[in-house]
Amino acid sequence: MDITINRERFLGDMQAQAQFGATAAGGLSRPALSPPNIEVRNWFADRARAAGLAVHQDGAANLSAVLHSGDPNAKTLMIGSHLDSVLDGGRFDGPLGVITALEVLRTINDHDLSLPFHLEAISFTDEEGNLLGLTGSRAVAGLLDAAGLQNPRGGRDTLLAGMERVGITDESMLGAARDPETIAGYLEVHIEQGARLKDAGLKIGVVTALVGIRMMWLHFTGEAAHAGTMPVPDRKDAFWGAVRFTERARQAVIDHFLPGVVNVGRIEIAPGAFNIVPGNVSVGVEYRHGTDGDMNAMRDAFVEIAERAANEFGLTLAVEHMEAIAPATMNEVFMKHIESAADDLQLPHTRLMSFAGHDPQSMAQIVPTAMFFVPSENGISHNPAEFTRDDDCVHAANVMLRTVLHLAETYER
Amino acid sequence: MDITINRERFLGDMQAQAQFGATAAGGLSRPALSPPNIEVRNWFADRARAAGLAVHQDGAANLSAVLHSGDPNAKTLMIGSHLDSVLDGGRFDGPLGVITALEVLRTINDHDLSLPFHLEAISFTDEEGNLLGLTGSRAVAGLLDAAGLQNPRGGRDTLLAGMERVGITDESMLGAARDPETIAGYLEVHIEQGARLKDAGLKIGVVTALVGIRMMWLHFTGEAAHAGTMPVPDRKDAFWGAVRFTERARQAVIDHFLPGVVNVGRIEIAPGAFNIVPGNVSVGVEYRHGTDGDMNAMRDAFVEIAERAANEFGLTLAVEHMEAIAPATMNEVFMKHIESAADDLQLPHTRLMSFAGHDPQSMAQIVPTAMFFVPSENGISHNPAEFTRDDDCVHAANVMLRTVLHLAETYER
Repeated sequence: MDITINRERFLGDMQAQAQFGATAAGGLSRPALSPPNIEVRNWFADRARAAGLAVHQDGAANLSAVLHSGDPNAKTLMIGSHLDSVLDGGRFDGPLGVITALEVLRTINDHDLSLPFHLEAISFTDEEGNLLGLTGSRAVAGLLDAAGLQNPRGGRDTLLAGMERVGITDESMLGAARDPETIAGYLEVHIEQGARLKDAGLKIGVVTALVGIRMMWLHFTGEAAHAGTMPVPDRKDAFWGAVRFTERARQAVIDHFLPGVVNVGRIEIAPGAFNIVPGNVSVGVEYRHGTDGDMNAMRDAFVEIAERAANEFGLTLAVEHMEAIAPATMNEVFMKHIESAADDLQLPHTRLMSFAGHDPQSMAQIVPTAMFFVPSENGISHNPAEFTRDDDCVHAANVMLRTVLHLAETYER
Repeated sequence: MDITINRERFLGDMQAQAQFGATAAGGLSRPALSPPNIEVRNWFADRARAAGLAVHQDGAANLSAVLHSGDPNAKTLMIGSHLDSVLDGGRFDGPLGVITALEVLRTINDHDLSLPFHLEAISFTDEEGNLLGLTGSRAVAGLLDAAGLQNPRGGRDTLLAGMERVGITDESMLGAARDPETIAGYLEVHIEQGARLKDAGLKIGVVTALVGIRMMWLHFTGEAAHAGTMPVPDRKDAFWGAVRFTERARQAVIDHFLPGVVNVGRIEIAPGAFNIVPGNVSVGVEYRHGTDGDMNAMRDAFVEIAERAANEFGLTLAVEHMEAIAPATMNEVFMKHIESAADDLQLPHTRLMSFAGHDPQSMAQIVPTAMFFVPSENGISHNPAEFTRDDDCVHAANVMLRTVLHLAETYER
């Protein structure tokens, strides 16, 4: 079937959604379950109902438009992304995937096509982490726990206020897990948030894996000392350990672990005075790669580098491994359908890893999942200057439409 | 003359002074003009009066015991140190010099010796910097300014409360400068606060210079970025500049500037999150050396190293030179008298630089000044475990006594 989405309706809705939480700088500011986020959710529900779709909110405030299959016992193919944004973010990170999903349902509905699965366009709650991060998709995948809800990243009060606005509770969030047997799979399109596609002149990036993310604190302990009277060669300066670790960890990634990444984004230095040699320095390290094997190899290399740096300066080292997000491998069959769809549309494509976290990270834990990217101008994201061209947005929606149709054609109940 | 100080009286007073502000850990906690500091000042005044000495407090609350010369037109030879301590400090840093000065005056008084100068045992206010740092000696040397008093290191309220306790004002502090023509010189003995004498088996360290202290901020600016999506080779990570600067500056000091010292004691890293590449990092650098020439050479080397590090990572660098304390060269004639005194007492001695700041730094700006050290056990200072043996304390007082007598013998009016 050679149908395409309604370009005007789709781009009109991309424009319309951007009015909610719009900032003077041309971006969006609508953290999860904040008033402007509630407004865009209500608008989305209205647009879905206007298209004749069923609208449903689950116990985690995930908001879905549903196009039912003729078969009441069918499973559901989910397509989605998120309508929340970071503070002072852009207009494409999330909304492109949600409006695409809505448009795919509308287009199929317009053509009265009968699919072997229900189609659900879902806007997940709090992908960005104003509250917890990937909250809605983790709820669906059964990955939320009660303790996490008591101590959310954004503060318990912010979470409570947000939950009250949409009429949900801790209990309803923990009860929002869905039976994987009822779900045929999950698909998402997102802007790349990087410049790899643009730099390579490509239009579609088929994600092979969403990288795992691990964090650790390296606590170097030396001896605080008078910065005048303690001779330099005799010092046990904890910052020297931090410095040597950082330099060598960077080099190790470049030499052995690309496209893996490492970041030292936090440093705690104590006592923290111009005239005192640092006795205690903690180094906040984050690293990402596509498989557990790669992550383990990075971890071992970093710990060895830190231990060596500590030894060289007479320091002691304590390694504190923090929270980790497992890498998520995308479904090969789904990936091939995306590639076929791109080929149909003569859009040059490549395979790549996603180095940012997205809701497919949760969904891949329970059902076949795939994701693809369209180009970000200048690779800028989480910024009002975030921009993806109209044609690239339309490509996103048409590739998604064709992927769904390919899946329907080959679907085995 | 072969007289010596009264060991029992002197060591008794060293014990007695340590009761004021005594801590459970065996140290002292009596920040400048705090209640326990006031108590030890009152005790000192009582002890001086009991010995028949005149007692005087100046407009900066410097507290002096004076033994007048027979000559009413004589100049004054000042000997001193300080009775304030850092929070949770030790029992020797400061008091040894003040009790030594008192004992020298008492001993000369006991022997009815007539000197060609008045002798003044002075306890300077706030050497340690609970208020401003070197406050009393800077007042005497005319180095205080009104602006500094409005914005003191320890906060204006702390300063006001302290001033009220001893009945002084901004005006009286600024008016406490003394005419250098009335002062014959300044002498001070202090514990080393390091382990150089102890390690070398020496008893007396004759200070050649008190090092200058300079501070600067190096502001590295790169580009904050997503710690996942921005490939490591493409990053402009401001912390990398800080790291490379620190490693190379350390090596430069070891290779070219010893016994000079450098310290990176503060780091400001922004945005400061695990998942954001640092876009802005400020490095707080302090360095010390014995002459302006050495200090300038260190400054030039550090700035060149920082610029090179910035270039290597595509960063920009802004250098912000902060407050500086000029190096103070000690008086050669006075130094030789100290060495002669040590030789008289068969105490092995050496010349060395002081890498800590002391009141002679102020006094050397206006009058001939000298200083010597006695050993600190384990080099520990600013700590309750600070300790100097009784014999070494007695050596301090006897060397000071003989130095004064040598000066009197060779004094030219």
